[in-house]
Amino acid sequence: MAAISIDLDMKRITNDRFVEKAKKLEPKLMEKQVKPVKIVSIDETGKAVPRADIGDMGHIALKKGESIVLDFGDHQVGYVSFQLKSVGSPQDAPAYLRFKFGEVSKEIRENSEEYDGWISSSWIQEEYIHLDVLPACLHLPRRYAFRYIEIYAVDTSLKFQVVVEEAVCRAVSAVDMEVVEPISEAEPVLQRMDRVSLRTLQNCMQSVFEDGPKRDRRLWLGDLRLQALANYATFKNYDLVKRCMYLFAGLTRDDGAIGACLFTEPEYLVDDTFLFDYSLFFLSALKDYYEATRDKDTLEELWPSAYRQVELSRMRFDKRNVIQEGDNNWCFVDWKEGLNKQASAQAIYIYALNDAIYLAGILNQVSLVVELEEERKRCVSAALTYFWDGKQGVFVSGENRQISYASQVWMVLAGVKTGKEAKMLMDRIVELQPEMGMVTPYMNHHFVEALILCGEKEKAMDYMKYYWGDMLEQGADTFWELYNPDNPQESPYGSSAVNSYCHAWSCTPAYLLRKLSNVEGNPWNIL
Amino acid sequence: MAAISIDLDMKRITNDRFVEKAKKLEPKLMEKQVKPVKIVSIDETGKAVPRADIGDMGHIALKKGESIVLDFGDHQVGYVSFQLKSVGSPQDAPAYLRFKFGEVSKEIRENSEEYDGWISSSWIQEEYIHLDVLPACLHLPRRYAFRYIEIYAVDTSLKFQVVVEEAVCRAVSAVDMEVVEPISEAEPVLQRMDRVSLRTLQNCMQSVFEDGPKRDRRLWLGDLRLQALANYATFKNYDLVKRCMYLFAGLTRDDGAIGACLFTEPEYLVDDTFLFDYSLFFLSALKDYYEATRDKDTLEELWPSAYRQVELSRMRFDKRNVIQEGDNNWCFVDWKEGLNKQASAQAIYIYALNDAIYLAGILNQVSLVVELEEERKRCVSAALTYFWDGKQGVFVSGENRQISYASQVWMVLAGVKTGKEAKMLMDRIVELQPEMGMVTPYMNHHFVEALILCGEKEKAMDYMKYYWGDMLEQGADTFWELYNPDNPQESPYGSSAVNSYCHAWSCTPAYLLRKLSNVEGNPWNIL
Repeated sequence: MAAISIDLDMKRITNDRFVEKAKKLEPKLMEKQVKPVKIVSIDETGKAVPRADIGDMGHIALKKGESIVLDFGDHQVGYVSFQLKSVGSPQDAPAYLRFKFGEVSKEIRENSEEYDGWISSSWIQEEYIHLDVLPACLHLPRRYAFRYIEIYAVDTSLKFQVVVEEAVCRAVSAVDMEVVEPISEAEPVLQRMDRVSLRTLQNCMQSVFEDGPKRDRRLWLGDLRLQALANYATFKNYDLVKRCMYLFAGLTRDDGAIGACLFTEPEYLVDDTFLFDYSLFFLSALKDYYEATRDKDTLEELWPSAYRQVELSRMRFDKRNVIQEGDNNWCFVDWKEGLNKQASAQAIYIYALNDAIYLAGILNQVSLVVELEEERKRCVSAALTYFWDGKQGVFVSGENRQISYASQVWMVLAGVKTGKEAKMLMDRIVELQPEMGMVTPYMNHHFVEALILCGEKEKAMDYMKYYWGDMLEQGADTFWELYNPDNPQESPYGSSAVNSYCHAWSCTPAYLLRKLSNVEGNPWNIL
Repeated sequence: MAAISIDLDMKRITNDRFVEKAKKLEPKLMEKQVKPVKIVSIDETGKAVPRADIGDMGHIALKKGESIVLDFGDHQVGYVSFQLKSVGSPQDAPAYLRFKFGEVSKEIRENSEEYDGWISSSWIQEEYIHLDVLPACLHLPRRYAFRYIEIYAVDTSLKFQVVVEEAVCRAVSAVDMEVVEPISEAEPVLQRMDRVSLRTLQNCMQSVFEDGPKRDRRLWLGDLRLQALANYATFKNYDLVKRCMYLFAGLTRDDGAIGACLFTEPEYLVDDTFLFDYSLFFLSALKDYYEATRDKDTLEELWPSAYRQVELSRMRFDKRNVIQEGDNNWCFVDWKEGLNKQASAQAIYIYALNDAIYLAGILNQVSLVVELEEERKRCVSAALTYFWDGKQGVFVSGENRQISYASQVWMVLAGVKTGKEAKMLMDRIVELQPEMGMVTPYMNHHFVEALILCGEKEKAMDYMKYYWGDMLEQGADTFWELYNPDNPQESPYGSSAVNSYCHAWSCTPAYLLRKLSNVEGNPWNIL
């Protein structure tokens, strides 16, 4: 995800021991040489259509204004090199080339100069390079996320043209796809969905779990939580999760608040962005980690940092045990514009309390368990008193009593409604189709989780086919940061040019499919 | 200079011994660290006006769309490095910066996207760079020619700004200004003219004599001849001239034709551009070199290559001993559009014959001297018969009997008219002010040489003050490739954005001033 928050007065504290532990867990990235497989053209609709065999690459001479688009066959994250030469008369001027990288083919057609969104245009993956002398082996120093690369001759001269003789990507990731058992019994669309989820997760797993290898390339807590779940079910790289947990716990605000995201370069640094839900999810992520690993030492060491998030979040509640809203961006939930977050936040706190009660139990903190259970009761009761609209049969949020998917989903996940009631609530919200729908795969993931929790396995599977399956139909090689089936161009950033098309929080089908399989006892062909 | 000619079928031959000799003479470049001296703004007219002390550089934080312009105090040729940092909230996106280099301040204001000339826009010195992580020490790998550098923030993000903490140029040249005795007795404007000439020459003296360190950065014969003259009178780096002569003689067309220019990278290579006048000037350059050095070994070794140019050029003459015109760009003379070159070429051939006769004499080739003297007589006679217009008192050129400065200047330099007649001819052409004036300092140099040859020393000096002096008044730190006092924006390339403002063929005042001083016996304060 991405969000803007600025707090220049924020005081940071560092737990050196935690950070040292995280540093020692830094993975050695695996590398793979990948070459382009096709030469394509991008048509007016943004679709890649075949242009020539890759063997013809060396015969395409680029004059001023001409270009070649290389298709690397799948989404890649890595460093690229080109062998370039000039043909014609001697090279009497620098070659001026633009290299444009697209995770999806339509990015190649987007004019970056027309971009006018609020997120930095610097995320658009294109480089302008002068080459004084050809032939040259050009190693671009930055890392890119792409399937397509366009090499466009901004200018050569009347005397010479440029030929791309070779292109190669040194793809990097902390994990190898080979170690994951494919869901080979499932129907083809699910196999494909799993493959694309895995690729998404793999390409986000670098020195830390990144939110997106194109953008923002950072460790965000909300994304980490979902990535970790998918990772436990597939790559099982527990150390990378542990590393990220120690970074979050080691780098906090001076009151112990865990940030929404972390930078790893030029040094490890917590951002000045804090989100109510993300901070609490440190606790949930710790619970998931413990469940996957039974690593009690880590649990014991990180528990105080995790529980501190509950303490800080508790301050947001009024005497009625109702959460108070904050400024803009106080709580994330989803990118849906106009979404009121109050009810979701109330539920997320209860959700975190559930995890806190569970972990405190593991840690034998008997009196704390009792306290938290009492608090949980009060918060649930407040949720039912102040957010439940018995007439409409849904939870409402905020002063304007807004109805949204998010509020219902989180109330179900928190266990405020359970069993048949939860099932009815999920049916009700789908039937209502409120304006406040869901935009991110992150929110859609929680919707599916809520369906599974209600026992609605078939609906969950159908929804996954509808939502992630639709991205597959649109040609996704990795799952996108944003997807609204009703408006595929939707972006919270003012333009889809800076959207990320391989995004951590979208990788969860690999987890959900395996979860559904386990729920069933017998897998893929059943659902 | 720059010209476009394409001959893909051209066959090249290499004299390995000559090229080896040239390689051994490659200079070790001298380096100097230069820092900016001022922070300026470029106003709407393209003029640099003071903005802040250089000490304030570290306090200027660049947001999206903001820039800082550094003034390095004089024209520099070299490699630049920057120390950059971010301020504000953590750097949550790449910094996207544009670095623009201007030899003159107005280049900073020119929008390179509007450039639409026939020379490659790749010569415009600007780079777009993404910096994923700040602080960073950025070393740009290319060499630039500039006095001004603009660092423009194409984009940062809402969270951070960019600060340029340090900027430094590692300036390079084959020669050091310190070794040249200044003309300290001359009046200030001449001292300044000399200083600017020397800087022009110094900054063009690199691995070879370049025509311009911004553009084309190549060894052109016509430029070399004038640079060598200025060099003999000042830096006295004879080896660099010798190196360039051996390169030209070592890399020719299969018929022995010496090219108009040479590339030195990725390997030594003669271009497929041949100009009648430039090829012949190899002989004149050899004569000048011999006169400066008395290096008879080199003369003996290179004489056959030089004389071959006379043989090849001779084929252009018809039975009447009149030169036949060729296609476009067959002969350079000047960039003046519409200039007919026939009369100039006839004169340049005679000029070369003069040098050939002189060198053949040094080499004791008695019968050749006699032959060449006969030929000279025939060519001079043809010139007077077919190009002299007795009624108008000027030489005319081409079918349309065009009157130009160039024709008169070259006829005088060739000695077709001498003494009083030559003086009258020069007066006549100045009086006529024909439409076919002079555009390049290269042509203007020959005009001044012709005045000096006629004994018109004061007119020569006055003209230098008018022509090169006018560039000084316009703020030149080095002399420009093109200058038309009546139209300072004139460019043969469709836009002045690709003009070179430090150009080899413009450096000759340093030579002419010293020549005038010697002519007078007693120098600067006299003229």
